[in-house]
Amino acid sequence: MFAVEVRDHIMIAHSLPGEVFGPAQGLHGATFVVDLAFFREELDPDNIVVDIGLATDALKAILKPLNYANLDEYAPVKGKGPTTTEFLARYIFQEMAAKVKSGGLGSHAGGLTKLRVTLNESHVARAWCEGPLA
Amino acid sequence: MFAVEVRDHIMIAHSLPGEVFGPAQGLHGATFVVDLAFFREELDPDNIVVDIGLATDALKAILKPLNYANLDEYAPVKGKGPTTTEFLARYIFQEMAAKVKSGGLGSHAGGLTKLRVTLNESHVARAWCEGPLA
Amino acid sequence: MFAVEVRDHIMIAHSLPGEVFGPAQGLHGATFVVDLAFFREELDPDNIVVDIGLATDALKAILKPLNYANLDEYAPVKGKGPTTTEFLARYIFQEMAAKVKSGGLGSHAGGLTKLRVTLNESHVARAWCEGPLA
Amino acid sequence: MFAVEVRDHIMIAHSLPGEVFGPAQGLHGATFVVDLAFFREELDPDNIVVDIGLATDALKAILKPLNYANLDEYAPVKGKGPTTTEFLARYIFQEMAAKVKSGGLGSHAGGLTKLRVTLNESHVARAWCEGPLA
Amino acid sequence: MFAVEVRDHIMIAHSLPGEVFGPAQGLHGATFVVDLAFFREELDPDNIVVDIGLATDALKAILKPLNYANLDEYAPVKGKGPTTTEFLARYIFQEMAAKVKSGGLGSHAGGLTKLRVTLNESHVARAWCEGPLA
Amino acid sequence: MFAVEVRDHIMIAHSLPGEVFGPAQGLHGATFVVDLAFFREELDPDNIVVDIGLATDALKAILKPLNYANLDEYAPVKGKGPTTTEFLARYIFQEMAAKVKSGGLGSHAGGLTKLRVTLNESHVARAWCEGPLA
Repeated sequence: MFAVEVRDHIMIAHSLPGEVFGPAQGLHGATFVVDLAFFREELDPDNIVVDIGLATDALKAILKPLNYANLDEYAPVKGKGPTTTEFLARYIFQEMAAKVKSGGLGSHAGGLTKLRVTLNESHVARAWCEGPLA
Repeated sequence: MFAVEVRDHIMIAHSLPGEVFGPAQGLHGATFVVDLAFFREELDPDNIVVDIGLATDALKAILKPLNYANLDEYAPVKGKGPTTTEFLARYIFQEMAAKVKSGGLGSHAGGLTKLRVTLNESHVARAWCEGPLA
Repeated sequence: MFAVEVRDHIMIAHSLPGEVFGPAQGLHGATFVVDLAFFREELDPDNIVVDIGLATDALKAILKPLNYANLDEYAPVKGKGPTTTEFLARYIFQEMAAKVKSGGLGSHAGGLTKLRVTLNESHVARAWCEGPLA
Repeated sequence: MFAVEVRDHIMIAHSLPGEVFGPAQGLHGATFVVDLAFFREELDPDNIVVDIGLATDALKAILKPLNYANLDEYAPVKGKGPTTTEFLARYIFQEMAAKVKSGGLGSHAGGLTKLRVTLNESHVARAWCEGPLA
Repeated sequence: MFAVEVRDHIMIAHSLPGEVFGPAQGLHGATFVVDLAFFREELDPDNIVVDIGLATDALKAILKPLNYANLDEYAPVKGKGPTTTEFLARYIFQEMAAKVKSGGLGSHAGGLTKLRVTLNESHVARAWCEGPLA
Repeated sequence: MFAVEVRDHIMIAHSLPGEVFGPAQGLHGATFVVDLAFFREELDPDNIVVDIGLATDALKAILKPLNYANLDEYAPVKGKGPTTTEFLARYIFQEMAAKVKSGGLGSHAGGLTKLRVTLNESHVARAWCEGPLA
């Protein structure tokens, strides 16, 4: 199995309603350093997992509307529960899975089998969402 | 699949009996930067893998008696073979698995399926223990 | 010259008024991983720069009201211009300098000559404030 | 499951023929920081995954002919397609798998089940190859 | 004193003529992760050291012709001695100093007093060039 | 001003007598990831600060007797006060300064003006010693 992982980041505000979140119930924010890994079983004819230029651009395009946003007011995630690190990892996973499906990652991207999205929120905490591509 | 990982550290002394350990047979020590990852298949009703506050506190509680210890004299690990990085990763895994089972990680922690404990011992070496929760 | 540096972090929301800030004019947020370095010319009688336990606690105490805060509504920084990374580095510098002066860093802290506060805001950007202790 | 991972690096030149590589078609280079992980189901009688001294030496021996090389002229990889990060991860995987098989990793290395080779090419990109030992 | 530091990277090929370079005399390559720090004594009216958007763009513009280049054939550095990490740090320093002088870093950049350019070449080595702005 | 910095590490046991050390008074240990920076005003005729091969070997030679040692029993540091991180940074500084003076860093090392030794003891703490070469 092979993987390629690229990195970018977003800086967002949000509040996390729910007793479990303690002081994070109030409006605060985070830098999420995002690692997106693409997996496939065998390399494509160019000896790559994915076109890393397209992968980097696709991640940047997905993150652009999230960057510098107040997620409490960001329509695509509103009303879907707390915008936790885990939730955002899943949201970015779904956005990238859609891009792969629609051909945005190049002609050989059909061979991709899995994605993993990791959000590093500090030097002591991170979360990730990993799953197969349908 | 989802995961949340938290980080803490310990600073210990120990000796590693056995020819395979070469110069590490003598009394020396290590800083282990410990990453503990909790896994589950679906997010809980709060859109989280685990209560990160409880997870951080549980890890700190497990590490406390190990921190600043001479493992050659630490009863819970004495006589169980060399206290290698791998051995300590398994020990911390077992301690955390017990905490999850006994309810210490919150009411939704029953949905946790797996743990991974990584001990970073330097900028060039680390070890981990990963396994299902019974 | 000697230095000891300790690390902690905060997760805040803020907006940055001023054309120069572009998309960061809107409400967004950041994780700041904070490194605080203490300097002195010669080591104290215990061969240390500063009591690292007191230093760690002092940094945590300074960061506590900032953590999980919306800086747009945080009284101590309101009306003093944009709460940029640089501004916050200076604010934390001033808070720690006051703690050193008031004796909160231990009986030998009079020998401290300088502080440096670094705020890491992502994997590609950071800012710091460095200066002598009066 | 247990793993031990060791780190080393190489500094190489190469060109990547193929339209997909854009500006990387020309002769350029890279530092690859290489992480090699060894996996096994249960620890060996010394409570280890692998003799870390042998593992470190084996990785260094595999990397030595690659280090400071122009891969366009390096016989073992010539004519096998572009020497991408993924390709090199697989090449190092195969070299280490052969070393394990031939007994170079010690008398208990028969219990190793899997290898993973990660090549970090910058602060924003990496690739890995992971697979079972035959 | 205040500083802001931004990060980018280049991937280059070169050879280093001179006995002192040992195996690096042959054609090889490197990833240089470049940190560029801007210094000033007091913050500008926007509470910043420099417009971080302009700083990031300026660094990218300076690095662009170096990225994916064979430095042995790159006219601006040819014939000036070995293109060591130190040499490249100085070259990037000079390019950025010229940009600051010509107004490319914004209207308040006249207050900048110093630059530092760090090139990280692996997980175990880096070099930097630091100096005042004329 | 120019600098080159190389990295290595040691794993030691020690105890730190003195009330200020709290739980670190008992026998424990640490991994110290050591960064040694060499400074000079102008590059030498080979466009370098120091022969990085000699620098790396010199650091390794200095660290060798410390690695895997119990510092409580290590003659060169015994009776000189607590073997704190700061103390060890100074000790390594002095050892390297002597090597520079005795010609161990090559024929151009006379141009070196300063050294800095940083000991990273965990992901949240480090100390350094910096000073001129006599």
